[in-house]
Amino acid sequence: MSVSAPSTPTSRSLEPLLRPRSIAVLGASPRPNTLGNNAVANLVRFGFEGGIYPVHPTAAEVAGLKAYANLASLPEAPDCAVVALSADKVLPTLEEAAARGVRAAVVFASGFAETGAEGRKLQAELQALCERTGLVICGPNCLGLVNVTHRTSLYSSSVPESVWAGGLAVVSHSGSGCIAISTLARFGLSHLVSAGNAAVVDMAEYLEYLAGEPSTRVVALFMETMRDPARFAAGMRAMHRAGKPVVALKVGKSTRGAAASAAHTGSLAGSAEAYAAFYRDNGVIAVDDLDEMSESLALMLSMKRRPAVHAGAGVGIISVSGGETAMLCDIADRLGVRMPELSADAGTRLRAVLPGFGTASNPLDATGNAVYDTTIYEACMEALASDPNVALVAAAQDCSPGLSKLGSGNYRRIAEAVVNVSRRIDKPVAFFNIASGGLHPHVVEPLNTEGVPAMQGARASLLAFQRAFQHAAYLASWESLPATPATTLTQPAWIERLAAGTPFTEREAKAFLAAHGLPVTREKLATNEEEALAAARELGYPVVLKIESPDISHKTEVGGVRVDIADADALRAAYAGMLASVRGHAPKARIAKVLVQEMVVGGVEMIAGLSRQEPFGMGVVTGTGGVLVELVKDAALALCPIDTAQARTLVDATRAGKLLAGFRGAPAADAEAFCELLARLSAIGAAYADVLEAVDLNPVAVLPAGRGVRVLDALIIPKNRSTQ
Amino acid sequence: MSVSAPSTPTSRSLEPLLRPRSIAVLGASPRPNTLGNNAVANLVRFGFEGGIYPVHPTAAEVAGLKAYANLASLPEAPDCAVVALSADKVLPTLEEAAARGVRAAVVFASGFAETGAEGRKLQAELQALCERTGLVICGPNCLGLVNVTHRTSLYSSSVPESVWAGGLAVVSHSGSGCIAISTLARFGLSHLVSAGNAAVVDMAEYLEYLAGEPSTRVVALFMETMRDPARFAAGMRAMHRAGKPVVALKVGKSTRGAAASAAHTGSLAGSAEAYAAFYRDNGVIAVDDLDEMSESLALMLSMKRRPAVHAGAGVGIISVSGGETAMLCDIADRLGVRMPELSADAGTRLRAVLPGFGTASNPLDATGNAVYDTTIYEACMEALASDPNVALVAAAQDCSPGLSKLGSGNYRRIAEAVVNVSRRIDKPVAFFNIASGGLHPHVVEPLNTEGVPAMQGARASLLAFQRAFQHAAYLASWESLPATPATTLTQPAWIERLAAGTPFTEREAKAFLAAHGLPVTREKLATNEEEALAAARELGYPVVLKIESPDISHKTEVGGVRVDIADADALRAAYAGMLASVRGHAPKARIAKVLVQEMVVGGVEMIAGLSRQEPFGMGVVTGTGGVLVELVKDAALALCPIDTAQARTLVDATRAGKLLAGFRGAPAADAEAFCELLARLSAIGAAYADVLEAVDLNPVAVLPAGRGVRVLDALIIPKNRSTQ
Repeated sequence: MSVSAPSTPTSRSLEPLLRPRSIAVLGASPRPNTLGNNAVANLVRFGFEGGIYPVHPTAAEVAGLKAYANLASLPEAPDCAVVALSADKVLPTLEEAAARGVRAAVVFASGFAETGAEGRKLQAELQALCERTGLVICGPNCLGLVNVTHRTSLYSSSVPESVWAGGLAVVSHSGSGCIAISTLARFGLSHLVSAGNAAVVDMAEYLEYLAGEPSTRVVALFMETMRDPARFAAGMRAMHRAGKPVVALKVGKSTRGAAASAAHTGSLAGSAEAYAAFYRDNGVIAVDDLDEMSESLALMLSMKRRPAVHAGAGVGIISVSGGETAMLCDIADRLGVRMPELSADAGTRLRAVLPGFGTASNPLDATGNAVYDTTIYEACMEALASDPNVALVAAAQDCSPGLSKLGSGNYRRIAEAVVNVSRRIDKPVAFFNIASGGLHPHVVEPLNTEGVPAMQGARASLLAFQRAFQHAAYLASWESLPATPATTLTQPAWIERLAAGTPFTEREAKAFLAAHGLPVTREKLATNEEEALAAARELGYPVVLKIESPDISHKTEVGGVRVDIADADALRAAYAGMLASVRGHAPKARIAKVLVQEMVVGGVEMIAGLSRQEPFGMGVVTGTGGVLVELVKDAALALCPIDTAQARTLVDATRAGKLLAGFRGAPAADAEAFCELLARLSAIGAAYADVLEAVDLNPVAVLPAGRGVRVLDALIIPKNRSTQ
Repeated sequence: MSVSAPSTPTSRSLEPLLRPRSIAVLGASPRPNTLGNNAVANLVRFGFEGGIYPVHPTAAEVAGLKAYANLASLPEAPDCAVVALSADKVLPTLEEAAARGVRAAVVFASGFAETGAEGRKLQAELQALCERTGLVICGPNCLGLVNVTHRTSLYSSSVPESVWAGGLAVVSHSGSGCIAISTLARFGLSHLVSAGNAAVVDMAEYLEYLAGEPSTRVVALFMETMRDPARFAAGMRAMHRAGKPVVALKVGKSTRGAAASAAHTGSLAGSAEAYAAFYRDNGVIAVDDLDEMSESLALMLSMKRRPAVHAGAGVGIISVSGGETAMLCDIADRLGVRMPELSADAGTRLRAVLPGFGTASNPLDATGNAVYDTTIYEACMEALASDPNVALVAAAQDCSPGLSKLGSGNYRRIAEAVVNVSRRIDKPVAFFNIASGGLHPHVVEPLNTEGVPAMQGARASLLAFQRAFQHAAYLASWESLPATPATTLTQPAWIERLAAGTPFTEREAKAFLAAHGLPVTREKLATNEEEALAAARELGYPVVLKIESPDISHKTEVGGVRVDIADADALRAAYAGMLASVRGHAPKARIAKVLVQEMVVGGVEMIAGLSRQEPFGMGVVTGTGGVLVELVKDAALALCPIDTAQARTLVDATRAGKLLAGFRGAPAADAEAFCELLARLSAIGAAYADVLEAVDLNPVAVLPAGRGVRVLDALIIPKNRSTQ
């Protein structure tokens, strides 16, 4: 698919597109294995119960159905038209269809925005046509869609024979994404939508529709781009209200080919982090590959109860093998999946039912005895579930398709035990094969009958549990989320200054920050040594000298910073030395002035920054500051604006958060003041989003508790940088 | 399985155990579904061609075979005895068997070292018996073994009906690990060994045997412990000489339950890193879960040529979908899998065969046109393969079991194209499904027929490619590896001092280091202020003051360090202030003295350390030093000893390596001197392994190039610490 302008949000209905009562196939063809034949044949094979009207200029019949010469000759105005024609014929055909009373269409053809300037023009015309006529469209450049619930196929490829009706809706920008998910043959589907270029209807609008569609219980998104974050967020709210989880795989997040940014904060937080932040803010279950998606879907489709949410809650795992238990422990540790230590009570209960040589722990090895006597298995599983910190009970088992008859019989009894326990306890239960590559059908049959999630792959399953916990925690809090704070702090003079696009010196950047309530170092500008000496006297020694040039953004690298200048003699030496070094490193830089700054001693060095995170606007970043910032790569990102509580969460997500709390005997730093600074900075990001590219405050000295923070160095990059 | 003393290495033959000509089943039972019946029935069903002698005191027949009342009545001395008896009967039975001329046995029974003190005693007796009689034993506490090649089953569980003969040998400490791998139903097996407690024969000895066994091409290890690293390394060398890859999954690596170490280096490098270092040193392909193992096995079993090894070499990926290409790019980026940018020549070749709207890049989207016209697919794949940096060509495809008939027909043609290209090019080729959960059989049939690896799961497949590259690089260099350097630097007085176990003060630690050629700070001990002033005059200001107490290992945390003392006045103030602070923080510590030290200014702060890495002896660690060491968690581990070249590789594996090279305008540091220090330190680790627990040099100041290094602080912990 290809990026193009977002569709106009409306409250129009998608019923004619996703659940039409009658369908015309324009470009229907009597030749098998053509798009125009597949589309008709799919409808017939699928048992669509409404009117199907193949349109062909000469053929009498297509795929066994009467064909019509043109739209005018149809016995009724069909709700939806399937347009199986090449790009050049699409617009005239849609005009005619709209005039005939058609309300929706699926456009398969490629040749639109994905192919270059001319295609983009054609796509814009298509969008204008739809706006004018009210047509809602799937595509162009897509495979079409299938409403499995209502046996409606508007699909150019062959609908897999393995598809059955169920609760999963798949919406994918990519046709292959659609095929990859729908051919797993693991989940019953309600809808399968190949959105293509999504020129008219995009993910957000499909979400809004599916939230209200009773047959859909979970939505899987295979996303290539985010058109309209605000509308997508609204779609997510509709899904949350309807109690339907959304699992999304976003592709194209890697840094390969992404433009480098001049500010450090830009390189610290690429678009993958921005998507992660947006998904987190909106309760999307984000996954990184198809296997992670499959297991999250398997869990969310069948999990009967939502796991409890409290500090310390996690997954309790039961197995019948010490080796597998050890392996699961390793994988969970590596992934950071919470597996609580058992309470004393649960331990006592377990020891009462485990064989003498067993060990009461989580993950639990119920021992080989539990295979042959599943009353032991059930008692162990219930004891595990009795722990207040066990929020979900998972049965781990090797159960691949190659099991022996004897083995699969044994393990089926374990599956039956899991089903029995799931009926008796009020916590969610899941079963997973420790390997991927399929589940033995005889083993998992009792689970599938009961609706206990049957998952596969230790890593993907454990990640799915972790994401289910995160999702439950999100849902528990999302209704109480504060409204986006008003950001009315823009100052017209600064908007103008930023819009001018010329570079900011450090001094000007600090003036901007100070004007918006951020605490910066005291400093004075000097044009010669004598002025510098006067400034130092006024500020008080020790002082810092910094080069002030519109052509130098990284002063340290050219020797343009001298710190800890104790007296006038030292200042004279530093002044001369610094100028010589800068002229050596950057002979063409314009150097008019030197900044004399108070020397702030002590405190923890943090970074705070803003960077553009399209399509989400500005993001705020924090982490370990100082000259090592790029080396340590310790940064966390949120989308602007955030309040001080969210700032605290952000700081706690970095390693530097520990430093602020007072690391290895150091006094605690003024984290409160730093969170206040982050919140103010994020408000600046939201307010000046149209004229600001990036802000980089590095370092910010966070002084001991009660003594506040000080911005020691600042870089501001306007959005439209003027060339020098 | 359970840890016990390592078996005595011998050059004994495992033939009677792994390829016996005749087998007695002791404890054979006429009752179905007992161990003693399964063992006989498996042999019969499996078509074992040698003599099978069920032994039962009264039964005339077991599983259709004539039974014998005792060993004495057998017509011949069988090579191997299967002992299907409880633990208490095992030793007398083995005595009798050895006397009858039996040379090997499989012992299923549990109740040995895995169950506690009495079991450990029984296991020791078993080991003594074997040493005395020469019996080689699989087990105890195991499922037994299957030699699929020679249709020999010595197995207590049911051998899966899905097992077929092939090139993969599986050896597992855990019975479940054995089952989990053997029931994947993806690989033909040569041997399946459940080693159990491995009291007599362990992984290393099985490796030595399998290296010489013609039917085995690849070995999969499911490991719980490493008994004898030196012998295992010898087994690996035998495998390398035979050209057989070993893929190992080690379980029980997580930090849960691991004892914390007093030295920082201990907490930086846990046993997972030690295993990783050992595997790296010995060319084991290490995987972290069963899915990663499956795909590495699939690749190594079928890959026909070894990938070329040179800087910049990586995987070239061809797909027919833009969305899937973007997803693969993301996953490869996250995993650090090398996907080289294409050369100008390859780009030109690609543009000549791609459709106009396609883009020549790696990973390559050959476009949907290549599905319908596979000559495009083949030409694209060959163009991709022509790039000198493409060392392996992988075809990525969605091809899950639920594909439509039409889709699977299309994709089969792609698989055929892949086969065609694999015949024409001289680079290894693989095919993978971007999802796990099975491969469509119709699609992969041509690949399986030709022997092109058919893999599944984007993540696991990409990791398998990466590990194949690492393995090829290892093999290319392992014959030229230097012999372990001699470590004859032990000094008897220091061995005695370390063996005493009493804590080292910083001063004593530095004396030890200096005695072994490591550059430490100049310093003098003072018992009062006047002595401190005299020492400072001698060393020259500025100086550092440090508390010297056997009871304080982390001086900074009690205020026991004062730096940058400029003159006598400052020294007096610092002296009093430091003593007051230390007495406040650690009132019970014995404080007799103060260390006056030269103040080393500038340089990059690194950490260098030694820590115990059982069962591999001592490890050497380096990384970012200074007070932030635990915060930054930047450390790399190697096993002792290493030479300076290996030290360089180690340093380069840390983020701190960039600092040494001169980060953001800083001058390059004396990395050579630091590598020399690491090599010397590692020699100390090897030499004093019996008496040393840990060494923690933090920080080591690495001065500008040519000016060397200086150990600023040192902590030494003897192996047997005496209590205070």
